Amino acid sequence: MCGIIGIYNHKRAAELATLGLFAEQHRGQESCGMAVSDGRVFRLRKKMGLVKNVFRPDKLAHMQGSIALGHVRYPTRGSSSPFNAQPHVQETLAGPSVALASNGDLVNYDEVRARLECKGIYFSSQNDGELLLKYIVCKVELEGMAIPDAIRSLMHEIKGAYSTVLATRDRMYMFRDPYAIRPMVYGHHEDGTVAVASENCALDILGIHRHLEVPPAGILWVDDQGMHNQPNDPAQYRAVPGCHHCVFEHIYFSRPDSFIFGENVYSVRERIGAKLADSDKGLHPDVVVPVPDSSNFIALGYAKRKGIPFEMGLIRNHYVGRTFIKPQQTVRDESVSQKFNPLPNFFKGKKVVLVDDSIVRGTTIRKIVQLLLRESAAEVHLRIGSPPVMFSCYYGIDTPTRKELIASGNTIEEIREYLGATSLRYVSADELCGCVGEPNEYCYACFTGHYPIEPKETS
Amino acid sequence: MCGIIGIYNHKRAAELATLGLFAEQHRGQESCGMAVSDGRVFRLRKKMGLVKNVFRPDKLAHMQGSIALGHVRYPTRGSSSPFNAQPHVQETLAGPSVALASNGDLVNYDEVRARLECKGIYFSSQNDGELLLKYIVCKVELEGMAIPDAIRSLMHEIKGAYSTVLATRDRMYMFRDPYAIRPMVYGHHEDGTVAVASENCALDILGIHRHLEVPPAGILWVDDQGMHNQPNDPAQYRAVPGCHHCVFEHIYFSRPDSFIFGENVYSVRERIGAKLADSDKGLHPDVVVPVPDSSNFIALGYAKRKGIPFEMGLIRNHYVGRTFIKPQQTVRDESVSQKFNPLPNFFKGKKVVLVDDSIVRGTTIRKIVQLLLRESAAEVHLRIGSPPVMFSCYYGIDTPTRKELIASGNTIEEIREYLGATSLRYVSADELCGCVGEPNEYCYACFTGHYPIEPKETS
Amino acid sequence: MCGIIGIYNHKRAAELATLGLFAEQHRGQESCGMAVSDGRVFRLRKKMGLVKNVFRPDKLAHMQGSIALGHVRYPTRGSSSPFNAQPHVQETLAGPSVALASNGDLVNYDEVRARLECKGIYFSSQNDGELLLKYIVCKVELEGMAIPDAIRSLMHEIKGAYSTVLATRDRMYMFRDPYAIRPMVYGHHEDGTVAVASENCALDILGIHRHLEVPPAGILWVDDQGMHNQPNDPAQYRAVPGCHHCVFEHIYFSRPDSFIFGENVYSVRERIGAKLADSDKGLHPDVVVPVPDSSNFIALGYAKRKGIPFEMGLIRNHYVGRTFIKPQQTVRDESVSQKFNPLPNFFKGKKVVLVDDSIVRGTTIRKIVQLLLRESAAEVHLRIGSPPVMFSCYYGIDTPTRKELIASGNTIEEIREYLGATSLRYVSADELCGCVGEPNEYCYACFTGHYPIEPKETS
Amino acid sequence: MCGIIGIYNHKRAAELATLGLFAEQHRGQESCGMAVSDGRVFRLRKKMGLVKNVFRPDKLAHMQGSIALGHVRYPTRGSSSPFNAQPHVQETLAGPSVALASNGDLVNYDEVRARLECKGIYFSSQNDGELLLKYIVCKVELEGMAIPDAIRSLMHEIKGAYSTVLATRDRMYMFRDPYAIRPMVYGHHEDGTVAVASENCALDILGIHRHLEVPPAGILWVDDQGMHNQPNDPAQYRAVPGCHHCVFEHIYFSRPDSFIFGENVYSVRERIGAKLADSDKGLHPDVVVPVPDSSNFIALGYAKRKGIPFEMGLIRNHYVGRTFIKPQQTVRDESVSQKFNPLPNFFKGKKVVLVDDSIVRGTTIRKIVQLLLRESAAEVHLRIGSPPVMFSCYYGIDTPTRKELIASGNTIEEIREYLGATSLRYVSADELCGCVGEPNEYCYACFTGHYPIEPKETS
Repeated sequence: MCGIIGIYNHKRAAELATLGLFAEQHRGQESCGMAVSDGRVFRLRKKMGLVKNVFRPDKLAHMQGSIALGHVRYPTRGSSSPFNAQPHVQETLAGPSVALASNGDLVNYDEVRARLECKGIYFSSQNDGELLLKYIVCKVELEGMAIPDAIRSLMHEIKGAYSTVLATRDRMYMFRDPYAIRPMVYGHHEDGTVAVASENCALDILGIHRHLEVPPAGILWVDDQGMHNQPNDPAQYRAVPGCHHCVFEHIYFSRPDSFIFGENVYSVRERIGAKLADSDKGLHPDVVVPVPDSSNFIALGYAKRKGIPFEMGLIRNHYVGRTFIKPQQTVRDESVSQKFNPLPNFFKGKKVVLVDDSIVRGTTIRKIVQLLLRESAAEVHLRIGSPPVMFSCYYGIDTPTRKELIASGNTIEEIREYLGATSLRYVSADELCGCVGEPNEYCYACFTGHYPIEPKETS
Repeated sequence: MCGIIGIYNHKRAAELATLGLFAEQHRGQESCGMAVSDGRVFRLRKKMGLVKNVFRPDKLAHMQGSIALGHVRYPTRGSSSPFNAQPHVQETLAGPSVALASNGDLVNYDEVRARLECKGIYFSSQNDGELLLKYIVCKVELEGMAIPDAIRSLMHEIKGAYSTVLATRDRMYMFRDPYAIRPMVYGHHEDGTVAVASENCALDILGIHRHLEVPPAGILWVDDQGMHNQPNDPAQYRAVPGCHHCVFEHIYFSRPDSFIFGENVYSVRERIGAKLADSDKGLHPDVVVPVPDSSNFIALGYAKRKGIPFEMGLIRNHYVGRTFIKPQQTVRDESVSQKFNPLPNFFKGKKVVLVDDSIVRGTTIRKIVQLLLRESAAEVHLRIGSPPVMFSCYYGIDTPTRKELIASGNTIEEIREYLGATSLRYVSADELCGCVGEPNEYCYACFTGHYPIEPKETS
Repeated sequence: MCGIIGIYNHKRAAELATLGLFAEQHRGQESCGMAVSDGRVFRLRKKMGLVKNVFRPDKLAHMQGSIALGHVRYPTRGSSSPFNAQPHVQETLAGPSVALASNGDLVNYDEVRARLECKGIYFSSQNDGELLLKYIVCKVELEGMAIPDAIRSLMHEIKGAYSTVLATRDRMYMFRDPYAIRPMVYGHHEDGTVAVASENCALDILGIHRHLEVPPAGILWVDDQGMHNQPNDPAQYRAVPGCHHCVFEHIYFSRPDSFIFGENVYSVRERIGAKLADSDKGLHPDVVVPVPDSSNFIALGYAKRKGIPFEMGLIRNHYVGRTFIKPQQTVRDESVSQKFNPLPNFFKGKKVVLVDDSIVRGTTIRKIVQLLLRESAAEVHLRIGSPPVMFSCYYGIDTPTRKELIASGNTIEEIREYLGATSLRYVSADELCGCVGEPNEYCYACFTGHYPIEPKETS
Repeated sequence: MCGIIGIYNHKRAAELATLGLFAEQHRGQESCGMAVSDGRVFRLRKKMGLVKNVFRPDKLAHMQGSIALGHVRYPTRGSSSPFNAQPHVQETLAGPSVALASNGDLVNYDEVRARLECKGIYFSSQNDGELLLKYIVCKVELEGMAIPDAIRSLMHEIKGAYSTVLATRDRMYMFRDPYAIRPMVYGHHEDGTVAVASENCALDILGIHRHLEVPPAGILWVDDQGMHNQPNDPAQYRAVPGCHHCVFEHIYFSRPDSFIFGENVYSVRERIGAKLADSDKGLHPDVVVPVPDSSNFIALGYAKRKGIPFEMGLIRNHYVGRTFIKPQQTVRDESVSQKFNPLPNFFKGKKVVLVDDSIVRGTTIRKIVQLLLRESAAEVHLRIGSPPVMFSCYYGIDTPTRKELIASGNTIEEIREYLGATSLRYVSADELCGCVGEPNEYCYACFTGHYPIEPKETS
């Protein structure tokens, strides 16, 4: 999971890109980066850490230019290192003059990299973005292709998810994989700025309130002549028909105020909650409590449909972060209590519907269920806003291997027993389909194992 | 606003103190610090930044010892500098062997400091905590007093709010001002650890689920003989009778899962919301929306009493922080949009009750009201969970001078007009009194100007 | 003034290069750098500071490879910044795979840079080495030239002094300007290592005790087939016939234990001293004292020829460096006394011959003369090991503009009077010619203004 | 070996102290430090590294005040750490208000520290200076002594070498051990500044050209009334009569331009050289060559007496420093060649007298002798400016344990054979006595084992 931003034609492009990255920080907090063109070369800055720490005003002051690409990263491929941060910039005799940032994971990274290395191309990271950049530069420099043609070639050869922005010293290109797996939108400000982002909340913050989807297999670019759109039929690159948007963008990743794949994220979540409520006909709970913050809207949807109170019974500590102190270090056995604390005297004797967005390994939600029971909740009915996650994702979500997925080797009853909940229900795949307008345009591979792009199983 | 933590008798005291500071980080994000005694001397670390960044595991590894004092700081007196961070440690011939951390502001800091300086005492900061520490060490070292007597003397001489923990190499003392203005609780873990904190959520995280208030003018200490309690009548130090707990701890500062001054914070907030609803008899709104996160429970209380939907219509970006880019830098005019974004298509045509906890200058809430109107909300009824703030606080809250307080020079109607809201109502002082069990034990000076301790007006 | 080193075919090339740089540190103390090829790409490290601080063992451990280029820099063109340090490395699609280090200044830098920029070449520094590298890479990459041909083309186009080493991932090239202005030698170790350096003292330290000159306009390279020598007639590039070695390498720059342009440096210096003595027939001094350390051998030569005692009457403080505290800062008027201190009770009543290598502005030597007089020296006869410096150097020596050169606007008697010396004599140009074996092969432009390569006068 | 400086009554005391430390840098290059009083408290800065790097002008700008103490350190007791650097400053209720810097080693450090620790005194380092400071502060603070009385008490209790400067906020004290083992001088500038230093070259640089010795057991101080001298008979503290100045200050440590223990250092060294020459009646060498730089004056003295040429046949590289690369790392077997290089073609066929100041382990001089023989020197007659070093020093010189001293287990002939020299002669103890004016006032313990203060043998 990552976020991208691209700004074209604003004299303070780096500042706008920083605003966009603020808005997308939820998509990746490990590292961030920015490349800014002053019309001649790109200046690059990338570091581990949050946008607000990496791009302080004094640093931005050194990044003058009217084109800026930015990226926030949550690590999937490659270790936690600034080398694996994006954007990537290609140095040539003309200076560092091409930059690229991308969101999504590639499936045939190893093969393509090996082919490029045979041609003498050097890689300084294990990052997908570098592969995309080197592929294009190689086509352009060594084979004399125009950039749009190089991108088309890329779509034939490189498989996986990519929502990508690329800039030369005076142009900005945007392109997206044929299944449109990850979100990607763009828009124009009335002052002439063009911006592209993973989520439209990053455009909102720039005052761009109308946005368009970059189409599947879309190749767009903007230069001083304006916007250009290369017609490109996605069908030619597809093994299976249609888009395959990641449904987890709605369930978990995207911000609730974003408009993803043509839908309001919060509305989809509320609909999921309502579906869960509809199937709980016989249940008469006292309260609905979300595991904050990602499940808030699912729980709100449940509460409204059911007509019972929504309560924020669990308080989340936003400040714990990664330095999480392990229980063995402190002889306290509940590391989850560092992150979640129940309201005092709240749960006692109550029939609680506890709502979470998904279950991966089940370790955290199990501790939360225990916490509620220890607080003397009478019943804890666990409701999950996604079907059981039984398969790994290869397109940009950091899921563990199958055997670590609790739903891949256990029945729902076994899971319920392990978690200690009074009852457990997942939203069904059919119910989930009912929550989005175009259910056939989504990828459900992590529930079904039907991958639109066949992954190579690796350790 | 600050938070303190003290740990006694745990071999990994620094780790427990770090956990406690995680839980209290909402009380101050500017700087943090810790002093740990290895039984001989204190090792001190304090820096600008969040607890999770300052006290990473590798740093904690160098802070061995069984007594630890910690502090998180939100700046009130003194500039933003690590010198003004707490705890303070006194270096003597015996090494750095006394440490102190305190929450609250002192009213006669300048006078007391001048008196101590006349005796040759040196101050390295402008921080209240250093004054308290130097005062006590001076009494002990130069006048031969026992520490409890020095604290009693302090209570006679130093005026203001202080919830304070002090440690020598083998003892931990806790004391609190006679009006008990700021919160302060302590508790015992079954493994023998004693902990003291600003809020009990910091004890919860340590597995200490029962806690006691440090009484007003209380002087407690723990040594290898156990807990000691110095009887001390607060009346002797009081100009006016009774406790004067800060009511804003309930309205805004404390975490909703804390139990402050004998009350559940979230319950107080929900009651405030209900009071606001009770007075809106004739109003029939479509939704209630909080300004997240501090107003969530007030809005929930309003929604429940009124029987209308609670909706999280504003999304708050937690990642913006202090590097906030000014509008003039980016030609975008709405800096508030960096922090709050409305759900798309949500407000259109709705009668909205917008709930906030308080209004200080009014600049932010004005922009939020405008935002909702621009989203085509039909009506925006603003409801405030505190009475109009008309006077500055001198006991630990960073309020601006009177003339910057919008309520000090304007009628409510004038404020409403400035904000652009359809209607505006504050909870009244009487209603607020009805929300806590012992209303006479609270300080309402910021609403009434009746200060329990008379401040010296300074610029 | 700079120093270069190149190491080929040693598995610890970076360590050998560091040793070489230690030996050449006298040629430049501002910054240093190294590029090491692991057979694939170059790893680069360059920083302000001394070799011993920049290339500590822990840093060397990260610079594995069998080819290493190193550089020490004394600033001439370009500001004091690590960007202007050498070596330079060219990044391409194949990674950072060409590196270059050079000693000497270019005369037509601006013209050549402008021509390259017109072709789209980007410069990240104002450094001569970058120009040489970009020129060659441009010829190779854009025009398909072989490297030796590119170097030949360079010799036609680029004017000035350059003793240059260039490496690709598996070859090391050495080349030198047609006048062989700066020194450059190479040699083989019996273990197969090939090394090139500015001075042979840097080869000595590696155990390479036999060395050869890189010929004027010489183009040599070494690969896994061994050493290659491209025949190249220097006459084709010369405006005036013959070599034009910098005579100041003997007088001042090179280490006395080096063998430069076919001569022992210390022998040349002793001969200069003897010439000065020969002309002092009527003078009967008590002692000869050098301005340490550069004039030691000239003074020794004088003393031996004259048969009077050589005495180290001035002690030089090696530790003062650049943080020299200005007199106005301390109300002490003799900043020279920070660097030189006289032996106590030494000069009193003595007729002293004071020897220095050259006079540029005259400010320091004036203070030294005053110092000796204040110590009650009876007479101070100043003898200078070079003719009057009347013209600026454009080939690598950091001389000031003409009007700052004391000898360019004053007679010798005027200079003597300004300095306060009893008598003043410079070695004459004729005498100097008599001190080297091939006097026609040297450049005397700073004494005569006859430049082998016509400079563009710039401000 | 360390150096101290103290400045009193100059508004730019820190700058003057920096100049003094520049002049004394030869006495210690590991770390340096300074404490400056602004009349109220001391500001302290100490770091590993050279004075010119630690006290850059920007750092000095933060050290305002009219009293400054400085120190350069060569490590003897305590590890290489900034904690062990000097000066030490005592923090009290009145702030950091006493500072101390000392040169010399203490013999009964462990005992005195243990006694002070029993009284509750805390030590933060293993440094002698901290012991002296804590001892005095303890006497003053806990026992109410005046500082001069505390120093007298110190002289009774603490054994060893100490040339010490101590400052309070408005006074500067100087005192010295009863045997006056290490040098210590002071002087007045006509502008009212008082300065104290290890060597007078540090006073010279300040424009103070007349200096006085701090007498053995002397206790002096300066305040706004002027200079004070506490009469104090050293005999009362002495186990054996007389001063015991370290004779190695003349042979090796001090700068040749200093005036130590009433003698010109360079004169003593030249006399040693002359004594060595006098005993070489039958020897007719071609040249005398010093091991630079410490033996230059001994070799000059030898050459003048003998009437044969003094030649600087070995060039020393000043830039190698501590990062010395070990031979095993580079497969080069002569690490000495990193530091010393012979003049080329110089030694061939010559009868050389090679002069060194002393032999400790013999490893370096052995390699130098080999170097000369490899250069085809006909004969290498090694002459040493001190008697054989057979015993360790406990008063401030970092000598190894006895068994590592080559002269402690071998005859001179055995040493000669090990070194490979044609002949070997040390100056005899009698001859050495003939080189100083007051031979009975010196310590020769490292030659004879007769220690004025009995050391505790430790591992």
